[in-house]
Amino acid sequence: MKIRDIIPVALGDQRARCIVRNARILNVFTGETEAADIAIFRKRIAGIGDYGAADEIIDAAGLIALPGFIDAHIHIESSMLVPRQFAKAVLLRGTTTVVADPHEIANVAGTEGVDYIVRSTDGIPLNVYIGIPSAVPATQLETSGASLGTDEMIEFVDRNLKRVIALGEVMNYPAVLGRDRELLTKIEILRHRYRKIDGHAPGLSGKRLNAYLCAFIRSDHECTTPQEALEKVRRGMHVFIREGSAARDLDNLIGAVTPLNHHRFSFCTDDRDPLAILTEGHIDCLVRRAIRAGVDPLTAIRMATINTASYFNLRSMGAIAPGYKADMVFVSDLEKLDIRMVVKDGRVVVNEGGLVEEVSGTYADVPEQLGRFKLPALSVESLAVPAREGRLRVIGLTQGSLLTREMLLEPKVSGGFAIADADRDIAKVLVADRHHGTGFSVGFVHGLGLKSGAVATSVGHDAHNLCAAGMDDGDMIAAAKHVASHNGGMVVVRGGRVIASLPLPLAGLMSNRDLFEVTEALRAINAALRELGTDRDIFMPLSFVQLAVIPTVRITDRGIVDVERQQFTSLWE
Amino acid sequence: MKIRDIIPVALGDQRARCIVRNARILNVFTGETEAADIAIFRKRIAGIGDYGAADEIIDAAGLIALPGFIDAHIHIESSMLVPRQFAKAVLLRGTTTVVADPHEIANVAGTEGVDYIVRSTDGIPLNVYIGIPSAVPATQLETSGASLGTDEMIEFVDRNLKRVIALGEVMNYPAVLGRDRELLTKIEILRHRYRKIDGHAPGLSGKRLNAYLCAFIRSDHECTTPQEALEKVRRGMHVFIREGSAARDLDNLIGAVTPLNHHRFSFCTDDRDPLAILTEGHIDCLVRRAIRAGVDPLTAIRMATINTASYFNLRSMGAIAPGYKADMVFVSDLEKLDIRMVVKDGRVVVNEGGLVEEVSGTYADVPEQLGRFKLPALSVESLAVPAREGRLRVIGLTQGSLLTREMLLEPKVSGGFAIADADRDIAKVLVADRHHGTGFSVGFVHGLGLKSGAVATSVGHDAHNLCAAGMDDGDMIAAAKHVASHNGGMVVVRGGRVIASLPLPLAGLMSNRDLFEVTEALRAINAALRELGTDRDIFMPLSFVQLAVIPTVRITDRGIVDVERQQFTSLWE
Repeated sequence: MKIRDIIPVALGDQRARCIVRNARILNVFTGETEAADIAIFRKRIAGIGDYGAADEIIDAAGLIALPGFIDAHIHIESSMLVPRQFAKAVLLRGTTTVVADPHEIANVAGTEGVDYIVRSTDGIPLNVYIGIPSAVPATQLETSGASLGTDEMIEFVDRNLKRVIALGEVMNYPAVLGRDRELLTKIEILRHRYRKIDGHAPGLSGKRLNAYLCAFIRSDHECTTPQEALEKVRRGMHVFIREGSAARDLDNLIGAVTPLNHHRFSFCTDDRDPLAILTEGHIDCLVRRAIRAGVDPLTAIRMATINTASYFNLRSMGAIAPGYKADMVFVSDLEKLDIRMVVKDGRVVVNEGGLVEEVSGTYADVPEQLGRFKLPALSVESLAVPAREGRLRVIGLTQGSLLTREMLLEPKVSGGFAIADADRDIAKVLVADRHHGTGFSVGFVHGLGLKSGAVATSVGHDAHNLCAAGMDDGDMIAAAKHVASHNGGMVVVRGGRVIASLPLPLAGLMSNRDLFEVTEALRAINAALRELGTDRDIFMPLSFVQLAVIPTVRITDRGIVDVERQQFTSLWE
Repeated sequence: MKIRDIIPVALGDQRARCIVRNARILNVFTGETEAADIAIFRKRIAGIGDYGAADEIIDAAGLIALPGFIDAHIHIESSMLVPRQFAKAVLLRGTTTVVADPHEIANVAGTEGVDYIVRSTDGIPLNVYIGIPSAVPATQLETSGASLGTDEMIEFVDRNLKRVIALGEVMNYPAVLGRDRELLTKIEILRHRYRKIDGHAPGLSGKRLNAYLCAFIRSDHECTTPQEALEKVRRGMHVFIREGSAARDLDNLIGAVTPLNHHRFSFCTDDRDPLAILTEGHIDCLVRRAIRAGVDPLTAIRMATINTASYFNLRSMGAIAPGYKADMVFVSDLEKLDIRMVVKDGRVVVNEGGLVEEVSGTYADVPEQLGRFKLPALSVESLAVPAREGRLRVIGLTQGSLLTREMLLEPKVSGGFAIADADRDIAKVLVADRHHGTGFSVGFVHGLGLKSGAVATSVGHDAHNLCAAGMDDGDMIAAAKHVASHNGGMVVVRGGRVIASLPLPLAGLMSNRDLFEVTEALRAINAALRELGTDRDIFMPLSFVQLAVIPTVRITDRGIVDVERQQFTSLWE
């Protein structure tokens, strides 16, 4: 859009393409609501006021207009959708802008993966800003498909990719504190170019937090207590309150938000599966829950809009104002936040709960496959764990949190081997290098709730190696091989038979199918999981079992990891 | 500073160079105050907390530590000091960062002038960020010394000058609304490179304000009523409340600031003379007066610190926090805001009201002269205004405001000529092209309070042509010639004799002398003005009498200007 074209429309000298009539507009700058026309020119708001005729009139009688919501930190890949399909899902929930860190695909496919995200987010009905993944691989304790080193960082700067606004979350906080030369060099290279360096520092406090901030890292989305969030805000961080599918921090953190500090808080989802987006919501879900927790609607909506735009220095986002993007959400009640209409780029994209045809009909041209899958040789024998003296080091999953705990438990032994134990909710878990086929490791995990069978997935933060877990070794191997045969995916197996699956041929992370086909497949997977005895969404927690940058104990393709010490530890006490 | 060097200090593993002990720290993020050590490494704060020994201990017992103040918009040239001397003046008042628009020197000396400001602000004890002047010349209604066109804008982008963060105030708002091709092209060229485009839109409202915002201009420092400030905030502008030497808006605007909207307000001085800085203060003066007007100290201090840093996306400014610049002000009382100590770049620069020797002794290496002065031929006869039928169009100055009013008055006539009239406070005024000597114009001005004699100055926004004003034509010519003979300056003349003067040989705008020599000269000038019968600081208002972008009526070297219509008008009704 050229400035000279919008000015006559703003002045009222030239007819607007579209005018929104009769809405009450929530002004996030002042907290007022105001009754006025919203005149739209192309993808922007030309003016607020009394505007005359237009080619199109959107009647918003009885509705309150809010700025489109912004997700401060998300990995689009975690939706298992390609960006255009992801856009459909979040538009339904009023999100019109996301800051995406293509960290997952970068771990699989390197710069080629980042380029795919940049390319495939161009021209879709969602503003996608991008943080360059800073930690690929996240640690040296796993085998990733690719790495982004200092040379690649220099290349990113050189190429000057559009919509790149940040250095993505610096996950390996022990490496920052340990002054890891390569990581600090990456930050030094990018900090002048991208003014925002996003953080990831679960539990960091005191002098260690001071040191982390000295690396110019000024945001965090890993807080789990209000004390932690307050300390981080106090020390100069912008805190993104996260409510993902696995990591649910909002209820714990919302008490930290006060009228005096709320400008230092935003909302993000980080990782959210598409079923949760369609049923529970996306950023709207966080707004609604914040309001329910006692935050006033204006404050909650600011955390979902202008606060995030301000943090990321997005000049024309996060508010309904002249010159700003014409991205708006219309609700009939601020507290209920019932989304009745969504306008993106000045066009109605969602109306009465459904996508308008123009958007729903759009289908991305996506490659059939991205990246390649290469497993090591695996058989039932591979999974055998000879019993030893002492207790097993079991990875204890935590409901609603990414944190795990170390559990030291007596093994269930059969025929001289430690085996899974449904009675105590202990499943066997396999992680295998799926990028180069170099090897695998086996351990035990508590908290999946499986009674029989097995599951496998190629989504496994951050290296996205293949992970299988279950009660039956044969089913685990069958599940692993099924996933490999589709170049990635999620699968549920019982009695050697695949009972539900979702192929993810794009880097083993994303489906090339339509949003609603994917959610259908996920519903089938959930039904299949119930057949295996669990009513939890175990794929999301399982996808974090490899993540060696969040405490306490993890498993990668190379072994059991003690996160705090950033070292391998033994399966046995 | 390299990140790897500060981390051990932050962690407490390595001795800090300096520690501030016993201060209470005002946390602008949360509103709390906190008792803790502030550990300093080189120019940055390494940590807040309990730090041990250090090479230097600053004892701040009984004091409250605040972030150094930020001036959101200033023309350093208006201080008549070179940047290093200006720094000394504002450091005494707790200002450690300014966003400067070298608009004045650019109008005289073009890119050479901008380069001088960039060069001469490097390495001084003040953070100087720069906005590229967008409007040189401000209008086509005066003769400037240089112009910055689209070619020069492209050059600025190409050269990637450091510390440039904005496009400076877009003053010619009628040209924006009129879609002036060259001005809009400048904005289009720079808006992608510099994310901030500063505004200047006195009185703009409604659809015209909408249109101005559509040019990506998102700040303003020209509000004069609370209604105007609120409308601008409502429409997405960040409003800088200005309290300069001539333009005093704080008392009028401060009522617009509320707990819900205060994050959209900052403080600036725009143009402030060095005597006012030393006696009344700089940004500290605005904070103090805001508090006196009923704003709570935290809010007032936020407007002077973090709000401005956030608006300009200055990642490590505006707060006392790890990794942030070690720029701090120490007061003993938040309400009185009595500045007891100032720390800049981790060093004490001001202690008990005085500059420490290290700073006061620093003398800038400045050129003896910058730009050249070329007046048209001028004599007493040049000033003759033959009397005509009808009333004179007199420029009415407004105390405490840059706005002028049109006064239609009967002329005082003598010998067939309209002349100055001390009884009615009407002085004659001359503006002459001092860049190329092409011509001059003569008019009348009300509100200087002169009884006799004349003054002249080479400071005259924005083209900085020579302006003389007075009761006596001979004195006016003598004053003008004196200024020319020094390549610029300010002078007071009575009875043909210079009774006080301050040469400004650097572009006719700045002295190459020390801060205290300049203020001494200004005191002498004020004393001389009293001899001429006025107790006002008339040089500052006079320097705006040419400014054809602020309503209502002005005089340039080319004639009397009707600002709203952007046209010349007649001296006679």
